Amino acid sequence: MQQYESLKSFTREIFEKIGCNKFHAELAADVLLSADLRGVDSHGVARLSGYVRLWEAGRINSSPNIKIVHETPSTAVIDGDSGLGLVVAPFAMDIAMEKAEKCGTGWVSVKNSNHYGIAGYHAMKAIEKDMIGMSMTNASPLVAPTFSTERLLGTNPIAVAIPTENQPPFIADFATTTAANGKLEILQRKGEDAPLGWIQDKQGKGSTNPHALKEGGALLPLGGDRLHSSHKGYCLGSIVDIFSAVLSGANYGPWVPPFVSFLPVAEDLPGEGIGHFLGAMRIDAFRPAREFKSHMDKWIGRFRSAESVDGQEKVLIPGDPEREMEQIRLKEGIPLQEKVVEDLLELKKKYGIPSNF
Amino acid sequence: MQQYESLKSFTREIFEKIGCNKFHAELAADVLLSADLRGVDSHGVARLSGYVRLWEAGRINSSPNIKIVHETPSTAVIDGDSGLGLVVAPFAMDIAMEKAEKCGTGWVSVKNSNHYGIAGYHAMKAIEKDMIGMSMTNASPLVAPTFSTERLLGTNPIAVAIPTENQPPFIADFATTTAANGKLEILQRKGEDAPLGWIQDKQGKGSTNPHALKEGGALLPLGGDRLHSSHKGYCLGSIVDIFSAVLSGANYGPWVPPFVSFLPVAEDLPGEGIGHFLGAMRIDAFRPAREFKSHMDKWIGRFRSAESVDGQEKVLIPGDPEREMEQIRLKEGIPLQEKVVEDLLELKKKYGIPSNF
Repeated sequence: MQQYESLKSFTREIFEKIGCNKFHAELAADVLLSADLRGVDSHGVARLSGYVRLWEAGRINSSPNIKIVHETPSTAVIDGDSGLGLVVAPFAMDIAMEKAEKCGTGWVSVKNSNHYGIAGYHAMKAIEKDMIGMSMTNASPLVAPTFSTERLLGTNPIAVAIPTENQPPFIADFATTTAANGKLEILQRKGEDAPLGWIQDKQGKGSTNPHALKEGGALLPLGGDRLHSSHKGYCLGSIVDIFSAVLSGANYGPWVPPFVSFLPVAEDLPGEGIGHFLGAMRIDAFRPAREFKSHMDKWIGRFRSAESVDGQEKVLIPGDPEREMEQIRLKEGIPLQEKVVEDLLELKKKYGIPSNF
Repeated sequence: MQQYESLKSFTREIFEKIGCNKFHAELAADVLLSADLRGVDSHGVARLSGYVRLWEAGRINSSPNIKIVHETPSTAVIDGDSGLGLVVAPFAMDIAMEKAEKCGTGWVSVKNSNHYGIAGYHAMKAIEKDMIGMSMTNASPLVAPTFSTERLLGTNPIAVAIPTENQPPFIADFATTTAANGKLEILQRKGEDAPLGWIQDKQGKGSTNPHALKEGGALLPLGGDRLHSSHKGYCLGSIVDIFSAVLSGANYGPWVPPFVSFLPVAEDLPGEGIGHFLGAMRIDAFRPAREFKSHMDKWIGRFRSAESVDGQEKVLIPGDPEREMEQIRLKEGIPLQEKVVEDLLELKKKYGIPSNF
């Protein structure tokens, strides 16, 4: 069990060691640790060594010149200059919110970036300003479209954060697949089978083997199979890919560069880096924020008090589980898997970090 | 089998009979018939008598004063004045596109409207102007959130239409449930069971009974059950509800007025009518339209040529099945169920329409 503050401070030091300035290192650590706090362990410090290896391989620029390459009053395209998505995306979200301040909404498509941590972090920034925040990103191809054996899409998440008055905010943040890779890893460690509908094998047959992905299989779009409307998950993943990358000039579909540094980047790339799409809508561009937020409280109150199925949990509001996890982990610490601790110790040694985590 | 033109002309006459002006009647018929053409039979002329009954019950205003009640350069809220959603939504989409013309994007939330036909119709309007179109709406509560026995959401569809160069456009248009009601009706007629994951019974247990909905059950959010991530479908349906209704001041969640006129409207409504959310993003607010569209062609070409699973169909692009159906039905006519023909004949008699369909 690690304490949030010391883990964050360690992470910040690593980012400084690879050349990030103090502001970027602090920001990147904040984004990364927010995943650990919220229980999305696959997107937190477990990935720190992965970012470092991408930098070592020359695929991440730790002192990027992030800039707007095109804009209108409500839109912008941003070139992340191969920077960490962890700092490029907050820059882009700030632009989206500035535009929303001025003309109601702001929409920013980003190219030439890298993995940006959890989608929800960026969307949530809008809430403090009484805006709705949206965030999506494409990612390494692991998902097969309906009817295909090929991996052409990433888990391409969507996050939407909506402010409230007295209720906690509504925070939806989900991959557009039935299950994300992190859930398969848990089953692999436990030696348990996966439910049908999560993955398929190399031939495209539904599989319960949690290792199927490593053996040439693919994750399945939300829905799982055609009978359960996997084409809708495929639509969602495609929309995320197009908004993030075809709009911005990033790589899309099977051309998205892999997160792991040992896999080669495809040749003849159609774009630059990976892509994100960030949006902000000022509530009072539609109706008075107070009025909206009090209706959100009513909406949430009604859903929270819905009759639940015998023997099942109470009805949850998007964001509930992550918020509860954050409260627990801030107090009790963040549990890390042995392999992650080993990874971090290796980084500590390699980069001569004095502090513990 | 009915011909498109005569069915559309009949529909237009009915709308005129209930008081729509010529322009509105033509528009409403165009929207409604686009569903029949595209194979979404549940949203086409099969609903015509439903609209008429709502008008007869005083719940639809056939000569609405549709107006903007609040706006910024990139947003607007529109009051549909209880008009047909079939005419309110195109009005709202026009505003969204005008705003996109001027400041890059336009986003319109609509209150005090009614059922707006297929979501895709409205999104597709943007394509001709080299814009991405988006369209969503809330609807009568038929869907239970994950863990609940109560119906709190509609099938709340999302449509996204994206322009292309030589490929047909990318048109995603889907309910945020595993299966829409129309698919259950097909099973009811055939006397076949529904797959698990489509519906639950009154107690919230997964059911294969295609009549479960009428017996107090509920449709399930995309994903089907918690193990297959129905909470993601629940998130999507909720986002549609909030963007369409909490942003605009329409009714939301369980308070959305039912489409069928024999069901009473809830008391103490939190808003007015049902809500929609329409959006338009000008492509060249991000990058030159030509460049974007040629990359869309490449995207589509790659997905279309993906290796398919042995014995399954080729990989489809969102919009393919509906476009193919439209070509067939324009040529061969639109097949109507006997019950729908009876309904239309009754309308013909009641409103003294001379022409056949």
